[in-house]
Parts: sequence; structure tokens; C-alpha cells
Amino acid sequence: MMNKNALTEARSSYQPKLPASLCGGSPTLTAPLAHDGPADIRALFPSTFDMAPVTFGGEGSAPAVSAPLRVGVILSGGPAPGGHNVIAGLFDALKQIHPDSSVFGFLNGPDGLLKNKGVELDAATIDRFRNTGGFDIIGSGRTKLESVEDFQKALETASARNLTGLVVIGGDDSNSNASKLAEFAKSNGSTLCVVGVPKTIDGDLKGGGIETSFGFDTACKVYSSLIGNIQRDAVSARKYWHFIKLMGRSASHIALECALQTQPNITIISEEVASRSLTLRQIVDTIAETVAGRTANGEQFGTVLIPEGLIEFVPEMGSLISELNELLASHGEAFNALSSLPEKRDFVAAKLSSPSAALYRSLPDDIANQLILDRDPHGNVQVARIDTQRLLIDLVESRLKDMKSSGAFKGSFSPLPHYFGYEGRCAAPSNFDADYTYTLGFTAALLLRDRLTGYIATAGGLTNPAEQWTAGGIPLARMMNLERRHGKMVAVIKKALVELDSPTFLEFAKHRDTWATTTSYIFAGPIQYFGPSEVCDQTTCTLQLEKGA
Amino acid sequence: MMNKNALTEARSSYQPKLPASLCGGSPTLTAPLAHDGPADIRALFPSTFDMAPVTFGGEGSAPAVSAPLRVGVILSGGPAPGGHNVIAGLFDALKQIHPDSSVFGFLNGPDGLLKNKGVELDAATIDRFRNTGGFDIIGSGRTKLESVEDFQKALETASARNLTGLVVIGGDDSNSNASKLAEFAKSNGSTLCVVGVPKTIDGDLKGGGIETSFGFDTACKVYSSLIGNIQRDAVSARKYWHFIKLMGRSASHIALECALQTQPNITIISEEVASRSLTLRQIVDTIAETVAGRTANGEQFGTVLIPEGLIEFVPEMGSLISELNELLASHGEAFNALSSLPEKRDFVAAKLSSPSAALYRSLPDDIANQLILDRDPHGNVQVARIDTQRLLIDLVESRLKDMKSSGAFKGSFSPLPHYFGYEGRCAAPSNFDADYTYTLGFTAALLLRDRLTGYIATAGGLTNPAEQWTAGGIPLARMMNLERRHGKMVAVIKKALVELDSPTFLEFAKHRDTWATTTSYIFAGPIQYFGPSEVCDQTTCTLQLEKGA
Repeated sequence: MMNKNALTEARSSYQPKLPASLCGGSPTLTAPLAHDGPADIRALFPSTFDMAPVTFGGEGSAPAVSAPLRVGVILSGGPAPGGHNVIAGLFDALKQIHPDSSVFGFLNGPDGLLKNKGVELDAATIDRFRNTGGFDIIGSGRTKLESVEDFQKALETASARNLTGLVVIGGDDSNSNASKLAEFAKSNGSTLCVVGVPKTIDGDLKGGGIETSFGFDTACKVYSSLIGNIQRDAVSARKYWHFIKLMGRSASHIALECALQTQPNITIISEEVASRSLTLRQIVDTIAETVAGRTANGEQFGTVLIPEGLIEFVPEMGSLISELNELLASHGEAFNALSSLPEKRDFVAAKLSSPSAALYRSLPDDIANQLILDRDPHGNVQVARIDTQRLLIDLVESRLKDMKSSGAFKGSFSPLPHYFGYEGRCAAPSNFDADYTYTLGFTAALLLRDRLTGYIATAGGLTNPAEQWTAGGIPLARMMNLERRHGKMVAVIKKALVELDSPTFLEFAKHRDTWATTTSYIFAGPIQYFGPSEVCDQTTCTLQLEKGA
Repeated sequence: MMNKNALTEARSSYQPKLPASLCGGSPTLTAPLAHDGPADIRALFPSTFDMAPVTFGGEGSAPAVSAPLRVGVILSGGPAPGGHNVIAGLFDALKQIHPDSSVFGFLNGPDGLLKNKGVELDAATIDRFRNTGGFDIIGSGRTKLESVEDFQKALETASARNLTGLVVIGGDDSNSNASKLAEFAKSNGSTLCVVGVPKTIDGDLKGGGIETSFGFDTACKVYSSLIGNIQRDAVSARKYWHFIKLMGRSASHIALECALQTQPNITIISEEVASRSLTLRQIVDTIAETVAGRTANGEQFGTVLIPEGLIEFVPEMGSLISELNELLASHGEAFNALSSLPEKRDFVAAKLSSPSAALYRSLPDDIANQLILDRDPHGNVQVARIDTQRLLIDLVESRLKDMKSSGAFKGSFSPLPHYFGYEGRCAAPSNFDADYTYTLGFTAALLLRDRLTGYIATAGGLTNPAEQWTAGGIPLARMMNLERRHGKMVAVIKKALVELDSPTFLEFAKHRDTWATTTSYIFAGPIQYFGPSEVCDQTTCTLQLEKGA
């Protein structure tokens, strides 16, 4: 049970802005159906592929709904700001559609659906969670719904609970699985409608009609506020280099957005590292040269943004990690029998390919240890656990030492590591995310009303005022791609990585040399809820640049 | 040069609230002089001890000031939110007193005064920094003004710059030195007036008429906002224990205030650890038992707040650190000759007293290494650098492993370390700090107008609306105590530690058992500038409890 302070109390009465098109009866407009999907994907989704995108708010009155809707809801994967408002929007719309409609929340993610564990969400509960951060209204979880057995169990639960619809709030994987469940249900004669909602702070679930995932706006603002404070400290104390790792499992959207919001001296974009096949040494050299250059200009301080997923995008590190995963799987017993860390490191280094062994031996001991000790239940290296910010600090420090002896660096280097992640995932949603999630939840209800199974809820025109947004749905099956996973081809929604020719990256690339040599920091400041619209309602630079706004 | 976003732009026009008593001519009211100070302190401050506290805003008109005032200003030590507003308040008041008055900023702390390096602060510069965080308007520094030579140099600079007054914005040490400089100037026939302003996010410069130091309010709100977000994540993900270290060099005021604002499961208060002579083992046991108890209740998550200075307050760790400092000073050469870390640790352990050796050997390797490697320029262990949050995680993890084998703990333990410090020092000031610092700067100008040298600027009644605050000054010499430092008795302002019988600690102590077993988190949310007064203007729980508000 969370307790409320004055801010939470005042914020609870915020009424999220809804597109004007959703304020009437909102009948459905169907787009023309394109009959040109790839045959292999269409074959996997025979019942849910040949459907067209829909928009709500056409002329005329809403379709008559004679029976109440009974809708289950699941929060899946890592939390993102606004999840509670998706459920509030869903609840409010369902009550408008039919006053006896109800929402049933499955506990702790997909697991609750498989095990038929959940709670009725009544109006008092919904009210308590309006405009709050977190996923604690029903909890979340990472269990995956992917096998036929899972789908059967899901349908059994839905039937036992008399559900007419199910809303899955999740990222790319969860929505891929929602699509498969929708297909499974429809092709097996079940009337259960399944609808997805695009969630992830990482910002990598977008494209094909989805302008952004919810939570990205708030999380980036929280991180940018902290980066701004640290930069103000850097320019005040004038003696520290701050190495800041930012959450974001693989794509660098968060680092890129925060760079645009705060203008740090250096920002590493994983996708660029991979595309240019940069080595760790090259990354370190660039940082060290920037440090030396700024120091020569009397600015013995700076900031570096590092995306959490960087390591896997450095091609040589990617090879090293795959080799380690294989090696530790095949020689686990001999490895485990060794008692000391130096022995373990030597054992591993001796079995690596020669370039990987050289790289491995060049890493600081604690990182070399992390690589072989911190493994997940499948035995794989836990890349997210690697203290990339400390690794870079160690390597830059040693590079600067060399440069100092050769006279290429004069001065001192005081680095400080930071990692921002958990601070942003459960922040209370910004106005943008509060409005966007409420709209998505509201839209999900309309999709269920119109029995549009296998759709993901969307809103469009998001750089306009919320009143002008469009709202509708896109068939999930049409977002699928075939990818090889664990040796098999599977249909999944492709993660949207940072494109090096996107307006967002180009804007960053245009300024980064200036930001490196000068001190052009922006102090972003904390999220505001009550001030002027230009302060409270502005969304991300990413979205504005992508929409040419 | 910082660039502005919409928030900073909107915030720059905020007009800080000023006490009504400062809005007229504000003549001085003098309190009756108590003639009862300690003789040893009085002897050290013959010219500036026998002075009475003053208040501004008496009846009648302000004293006539015929010549403009020319005032130097110094930012000393770590930054704190509101420093720029002290200078803005000073500037505005000086211009009111005489339109030709001026402010000269010394660069990078006391060093700028010693080296006569500084800049004129004109109206355009002041305007650019109103209501912003940071100390970057003139920079700060940690050089100490303490020797007779320093004081002579300071007076030379003041005379070269034609200064009539000097304002020192700093913590306990900087204000102690400001007091000595005032005494030196007055007793040596200089007309320079020296005035202090109480700054520190640590909240340990208070008492004797100072209700709080500026910056404490904002920094605690920034940290509480982050702790709140993390707690919302804890209760959403339901699988992590977050160990959060909070800045604050020695006193635990920040941890205590954040505990009251966020209600975490465990908060360690250094002063209690010292007073109850707790061992590291006892602290670890308490945490481990709380983890086990919560896990048994189905709550496999939680939060622990750790004050940065903790280690030195654990008596056995304090002894270990002093022994290490001495040992490394006397055996430095032999120690440095050893090449490997295990050898260095063994060397040290063999020379420690038996209880310290046992404690040292019980520490995880990386902490044992930090203790002997991370030393400051004086050769002392850098206590602030010790990753106390990781140390506690390691020890709790190993304790829980033991408890698991005995059956006293069932479940898993996934800890995550955090450190919040630099995020708060340079945040833009809350309304409270913006108003309070502007008032202090304004008051400092009035002290200089009335030639009240050796005073520190104060405001009182701070839990009332700002319009009702009182403003005045207290003789710095009357705040002094004799303390032994580096073997000599010196006069210093005593750091105000957390008192275990204070209303703040008692309030915390009353609730902490409930907070440990239940989940009573408060989501504090980000600092708001534009909303309802109960959201934007409320100050700390500490101040409200201390004032019985």
C-alpha cells in the first residue's frame, strides 16, 4: 500500500486529455486492406493477417453493444510510466460502452493468466492508481506465453473467467505473443479477443503506425533531469568526469534522446559502434582525446553517456561474449573445479580464439571476472550486469596515463561512475505519458467493443495537442518478421534500433563535435505537472524530429 | 555557458518571496547582549565576540547610506541549491541601498580571493542565473582561508578592489574561517566587513539561531524523488532489494529526512550506530533478519538507506581506519614495495591489532583493497569513496547464505546498489530554497549596510509562509567551540549531528518497525514549481518537526 503525499494527492485528480475523436461514440473507420504481406508470415497467421488498420471517430453513432464486456488485463515485462493509466482508460471506456462491463487484472504478468490468479478491479482501486507510476496495481512478470500449451491454458482461464477480451500491455516480445494468442484463439473457434498495447521505456517498439511506446517520454525526462543536475555539478566543481550508463537493453534511443535534451560532451550510440565496427580501443581513444582536448582548454570536466547495451554492439566484444557462452557451457565442470579467479581467467583465456583472448586479457580484472561469473540461469553472460561505465573509466584512465607520459595529456582525470535505470521505470507519468496511456487504454476498449482481435492499440499525430490525436489499431500480425532464435525461425516484432540516417541521429551528429569541445549543457530540470503548457506537455526530441514537428 | 530549455526559461522569472520585514527600509533591532560567553573563545575573538544578535525590520526608516557599497562574494566548498539566489538577493538589496553599489565575484572559491581573481557581476549576469542550480556563476573551491598569511592576502585583495564588504557562502569550516577573517580585519584596523551565509546540503550547520542550512531542502527532495521511484519499482517488480547510499559527509540528516519523506524499509542512522556502539555484524544481522522476515511475508523486496559517512561511525571500523592510516604512514615504503594485492592485504592484516585484523579479514576483497589503496593526498583512507552500499550487500548476502543453510531464510535475494549525491547538489532550488537563499543574500547586504562584521545572515520562522519570516544576523564568534584538530585546539563551529532525542529522530524511531515489516512507501515525486502551495512550498519534515509545526 503506497501512501500519498501532497503532490500525489494533487496529481490524482488530473484528468488525462483524450483525442476529440474518442469523445463521441467513436465508430470505426477501416483503412483499405493491402493484400501484399509476405507469404511466410501470412501462412503463420491465417486468421489474423488479412485485416486492415482501423481508426476511431468516423461519422455516425457507435455500434450498439447489448451485453457488458468482461476484459482481462496483463502487465508484462519491465515497468514503464503510465501502465496504470492504460488500465484507467480501459476501465473508463468499458464503463461508457456498457455500465456493467468489468476489468479483471491478472497478477504478476502472464503467469497470472496461466495460473488463473487475479483480482477484480473496481472503481475505487482504479481511482487510487490514476496518474501514478509503477505496475503495482496488479504487478508484472516476465513469463512468456509462447507454447501451444500456454495458449490452451490462457483460453481455459479466459473461459473460466467469462472473459470476452484480453489486453496485453507489453513490449515487442509480449505483443508478438499476444498476436500468436489472438491467432490461436480465432483459429480454434474461441471468441476471446486479444489486444496489445505498446509499452517500453527503451523506445524500441515503434514503426508501422506506432509512433512511440509509452514510458519512453517520462523515463527520458527523469534521466535527463539527473544528467542536467550532474552537468551543472560538473561545471560548478570543474574537476570531475561523469560516466553515466543509461538503461535500455539493446537500442540506444534513451541515450540519444537524453543527449538531445542535455547536450553532454560525449554520447556513445551502440548502433553506430556496430555499424562502423568500432573496437573498444577506438571508443576509449575517442574519449581520452576529448578529455585531453577539454583539459587543454581549461575544462577539466565533462560527461559521457553510455547506453546499457553497448558491450554487445562492439563487434569484438560480441564475439568474445559468444565464445565465452559456448566455452563455459562446454567446459563448465573443469571451470567450476578451479578455485581461484586468476586460474579461472587463465583457463578461459587459453581456450578463446586469439583475438578474443587478447581482448579478454586487456580487460581490467573485475570486468574479466564479471564476464565469467555473472551468468543467467541459461549459463549466458549477463551483459546488463557489466559495469560498462567502470570498464570505460578504467580503460580511459590507463590510456590517459600513456598519453601523459608522451606529453599528449597534461592535467588530472577524476572520473565518477553513475547508472540510471530503476529511477525512471516507475516514475509517475509526465502529462504526455499520462494522456497517451489513457488514450491507448481507451482505444483498446474500443477495439474490444468492435471485436477487433489481434490488433495493437495506437494513437497518432502525437506531436500535436492531445485533442487532435488520432486513435485506432493495427493488426499485430502485419508487424511480424521472421527471426532466428535459439536455432529456429520464429515470427516476432522486430526491435526498432536507432537508424543512423534518422533525423534524430542526424541532429545529434550535426552538433556532437561542438558539444564535445565546448560546454553546451542544458539543465533539463524535473518533470512539471502544473505549469505552462510548453513546460508540461512537450514530448521527446526524438518524436518531434521524427515527425518533423 | 548553459543553454535554457522551456522550464529554465519559465523559472527564470520567478520572483522569490521575501519576508515582509525586509520590504521596507528594514532598520536594525538589536537583541540584548548576553555577557556570558566562554572565556577561552572570547579571548580568541576580542573584537567580534561581544556583539548581540540583530533583526531587521524595526520601526522607523532605514539608516542613510551616502556612499555605494562594494561587496566581494565567495562560494566555498561543495555546491548547494540556491547559491546563485544568495548572490541575486545580495545584488538586489545592495542596489536598493545605493544604486551605485556593486558586487565582485571571486573565482573558484577562497582561492580567487587569495589570488585576486574575479569578475564584476552585472545585472545581466545576475539575471541569467536567477533561480538556477549550481555554483557556476563564479565557481567554487575548497581552499581554506586559515593562516595569518591568508588573512593578510585577503585584506590586500579587498583593499586593491576597494571592497567595503565580503560575503562568504559556505559550510561550518568556511564560516569558522570567515569569523576569524572578520576578527583579524577588525583587530588590525581594516574597515572590511565580513559576513557569512549558512550553506550545505548536509544540513549539519544549524542551531543557535540558524534553523537550517540552504540546499538541504532541495537536495533531500531530489533524493526522495529518486528513492520514491525506486520504491515504486521495488513494489512493482517484487524481486529486488535496493541498497541506496546517500551523500552527507558525516551527519545523517539527509538519510533521516529522506526516510521521513519516503518511508523505506530500513534506514541506518550513523549517530545511532556510534551511540549504541553497533558492530558491522550487528548492522548486517538486522538487515538480514528484515530481509528474511519480509520474504516470509511474501515481500521479497525492499529498500535500505545508508548514510555516506556510516563507516566512520561504526566504532570498530573507525578504529580499523585510524590504525590503517597510521600503519600506512609508518610502513609506506615496505607496503608500496609489495606488488600483489593479496600480499598487501596480508602485510596490513599482520600489523593490525587483533580485533581490527579480524574485522579486516572479514571484509570482502574489493572493500579491503579500497581501504588500503584509495587514499587522499594526506595518505588517509578516503572514507567517502568506500562503496558502503556494496559492502553491506556482500555481507548481507553471505549472512543470508548461512541463514538459508540453517533454514532461517527461505527465498532468494537480489540486491542492487545505488549512490545518490551529485544528482542533488546542483539541482535548481525548490521554492523554499529559492526564497530562503534570496532572503539570506538580501539580509547579508543589510548586515554590510549596517557594518555588522563577523555576523552570519539568518532567517527564522521558516515553517511559516515566507512573508512572515524574520531576518537578521548572529555573531559568528558566538557559535564557536574549541576542538582538537591535527593535535591543536582550534575554534570552529561544531557540526550539528543527528540528536537521538530530537523530534525528528523520535518520529522516525516511532515508525521504523512498521516500515520494516510492512510496505508503507511514499512516492515523493519530483520538485514542483508551478502548482498549489501545499505541493510547491512545503519544506522538510526535519524543519517542521524541529519547529513543532
